[in-house]
Amino acid sequence: MTGKFIVLEGLEGAGKTTARQTIIEALNEQGITDLVFTREPGGTPLAEKLRQLIKHESEELITDKAELLMLYAARVQLVENIIKPALNEGKWVLGDRHDLSSQAYQGGGRQLDQHLLSTLKNAILGEFEPDLTLYLDIDPQLGLQRASHRGALDRIEKQQLDFFQRTRQRYLELVRDNPKAITIDASQSIEQVGTDIKSAVKNWIQTLSK
Amino acid sequence: MTGKFIVLEGLEGAGKTTARQTIIEALNEQGITDLVFTREPGGTPLAEKLRQLIKHESEELITDKAELLMLYAARVQLVENIIKPALNEGKWVLGDRHDLSSQAYQGGGRQLDQHLLSTLKNAILGEFEPDLTLYLDIDPQLGLQRASHRGALDRIEKQQLDFFQRTRQRYLELVRDNPKAITIDASQSIEQVGTDIKSAVKNWIQTLSK
Repeated sequence: MTGKFIVLEGLEGAGKTTARQTIIEALNEQGITDLVFTREPGGTPLAEKLRQLIKHESEELITDKAELLMLYAARVQLVENIIKPALNEGKWVLGDRHDLSSQAYQGGGRQLDQHLLSTLKNAILGEFEPDLTLYLDIDPQLGLQRASHRGALDRIEKQQLDFFQRTRQRYLELVRDNPKAITIDASQSIEQVGTDIKSAVKNWIQTLSK
Repeated sequence: MTGKFIVLEGLEGAGKTTARQTIIEALNEQGITDLVFTREPGGTPLAEKLRQLIKHESEELITDKAELLMLYAARVQLVENIIKPALNEGKWVLGDRHDLSSQAYQGGGRQLDQHLLSTLKNAILGEFEPDLTLYLDIDPQLGLQRASHRGALDRIEKQQLDFFQRTRQRYLELVRDNPKAITIDASQSIEQVGTDIKSAVKNWIQTLSK
């Protein structure tokens, strides 16, 4: 049996790292222990080099289009070389971000052309998509406040508030139209967010065996 | 007055480096001396880093799609940050490769989907294109023989002969349909190739002032 691909999505400070632990626990409790972890952009030697180019300040202006193309270059490496082989071996893959991030950040935040985004998605990924996406929804003001405690912000995190507001808006639109995505209210207490995630994952796994 | 963008295209060993010198001489003789030189992939700090990732062997398989996306990421940086500003300042830009290379190598050689290639070209470059392309046509067997004297081959140059045959075929098709491209028979003697290039450039410049 092939494995499943579960993805965590959300703005900076939404609590993805804590959520990841919760999902691991939930999966382990269901006897699913052969897990592979990915993060995007990144997760292969080439993709990690691209991550550096994308996230760090450059001596030149990085155009929005170059950023998008590098994100997809990293993604196709990760999907073809890591995620698909793992799923085919029956492993479950838990991803920190995937394509929805590009649709939300580059489509919503950067306001890149929708046709370019959907064409790239289709041409690069085809029918491949996560089996389950958990979107941790948070007001960007609260998220950035939480994220600011982590230290220096990278190139993307330095965007203005309206960038993140547009990104959240697009996330909400995309998740609403996606039957394989579940929204978690990440503004709640850590305990409540954990409870919501655990029950969402367990309910979803139960639907699989039906 | 804005400058002009002249591009040299052709397979490895077609003689682009010598041709470049010939074009510089031809332009200088016409009083055009304010030149900017570009090479692709490359030509900006970020694009040169991408060139390294594209050209060198990696510890992982570089997918054809990731290669294409990195090429376009490098290209959009070069066009937006170097070529367009130079042209707007009235400088002439002489490019070692541009978009036709991706159409020929990735479309012909790698046989990537034509729809993906044309969509990327349109989405990334829009109406932007060289004012003149000189395509140095050579049989790949002869070209590779010449190129082999240069030392170690890079990741692209290590492709099999049929890869370069498909690339040449696509070059010929693209140039045939492009009124702004001129084919030079690069299998001739260096002297004759030089004469052909010089006369092609001079004739073209004369049509500009009409």
